[in-house]
Amino acid sequence: MRYDGTHYHGWQRQPRERSVQEVLEDSLKSLHNGDDVTIYGASRTDQGVHALGQVFHFDTSLEIPIERFALAINTYLPQDIFVTSARRVDPAFHARKSAVKKTYVYQMMWPDYMPHLRTTHGHVKGTLDFEAMHQAATALLGTQDFRSFTQNATYDSYERTVMDATLQRTEYGFSLTITGTGFLRHMVRIIMGTLLAIGQGSPISMREVLAAQDRQVAGLNVAPEGLYLQQVDYE
Amino acid sequence: MRYDGTHYHGWQRQPRERSVQEVLEDSLKSLHNGDDVTIYGASRTDQGVHALGQVFHFDTSLEIPIERFALAINTYLPQDIFVTSARRVDPAFHARKSAVKKTYVYQMMWPDYMPHLRTTHGHVKGTLDFEAMHQAATALLGTQDFRSFTQNATYDSYERTVMDATLQRTEYGFSLTITGTGFLRHMVRIIMGTLLAIGQGSPISMREVLAAQDRQVAGLNVAPEGLYLQQVDYE
Repeated sequence: MRYDGTHYHGWQRQPRERSVQEVLEDSLKSLHNGDDVTIYGASRTDQGVHALGQVFHFDTSLEIPIERFALAINTYLPQDIFVTSARRVDPAFHARKSAVKKTYVYQMMWPDYMPHLRTTHGHVKGTLDFEAMHQAATALLGTQDFRSFTQNATYDSYERTVMDATLQRTEYGFSLTITGTGFLRHMVRIIMGTLLAIGQGSPISMREVLAAQDRQVAGLNVAPEGLYLQQVDYE
Repeated sequence: MRYDGTHYHGWQRQPRERSVQEVLEDSLKSLHNGDDVTIYGASRTDQGVHALGQVFHFDTSLEIPIERFALAINTYLPQDIFVTSARRVDPAFHARKSAVKKTYVYQMMWPDYMPHLRTTHGHVKGTLDFEAMHQAATALLGTQDFRSFTQNATYDSYERTVMDATLQRTEYGFSLTITGTGFLRHMVRIIMGTLLAIGQGSPISMREVLAAQDRQVAGLNVAPEGLYLQQVDYE
């Protein structure tokens, strides 16, 4: 499923703020004739973050043919949330726990500011050394401790495996595509902030940032508007 | 200058609706210590239409160095309007009347609906014959009567010259770039609607639509969200 995260306080249901989960659950409740439905998403995207390939699961007693289920949900959804397809899964399937890898994309406009892209891209000005940024991105590959890229201190383990980290030029700037087994909170945005710092001439290398295992040595947590949950893969 | 037209009732100042012109004039009034400033834009873009290369002129008595003028205006503007640069011009210069050609771009998402693009792209589903659309676009070139592509009956002449009309595939669909000496109201959007009808198998050709000089035979006026004033050229 896809959503524009601009007008939501992230994926996860919260007491006083509008979330993607809440709007989806409300729609499913209408579809289920007023019965409560709880959904489980693959990724708890933050406020302002978008999705092109979010996945969620739920239990249903409805007899709607599975190929019409997405259409049925969409009739209850606002224009900024769109369910692309639905399928029946094994009762053991869990949208988050069964995921084997996830892909995020960060879209940055550079160097010019384009007002019509301000809710879908980050923005950075000035000179950037792309060669240094490309090299730094390759240092992210493999199984490593990514503690430097989160302020969250509650994880059991900070080890994650990154299989792909690619910078590409785009029409209005550049993008980072990153695929891994899982991501720490704010990890992709802080990685982008660190790549920017390196592109702007910071003397510290990505390997040194990783080795430090210290949030203080990594770059800024860049704006959420440029981040997309692109894809979730299962076995 | 650039703007995201989503939250404006078009360029032109209106009594009860917020327009780009009004917001710019209010900002310039603040910059001019409360003196009214009237601006003249190159194109009166409609509600929802965006600009990447709008041009406007005005008279000023301020002594701000010209290279700092854009920055000074931007400090008074909201995030969805951005002045890229300013220059001194001859008193005879008029942003609209002195323009020799304009370029518009229409961005269409196809076939998939992407919520995060809904305010910056049109959307069309289904099969499209791109070869037929490419051919139809070339029929637009040259100096012709474009009466079929507007519902506005108040023009002295409907003859315009189109120098370029190019369809291109994009990441999420396709775009039309069209350059001409001038455009009738809704002309680009109705041209796009006619290209879609042809791509969907309509038996009428672009040459026949042009020859008919009749709004009824052209296609739909597609959504304004996909339209951008890309560039205005002067002598």
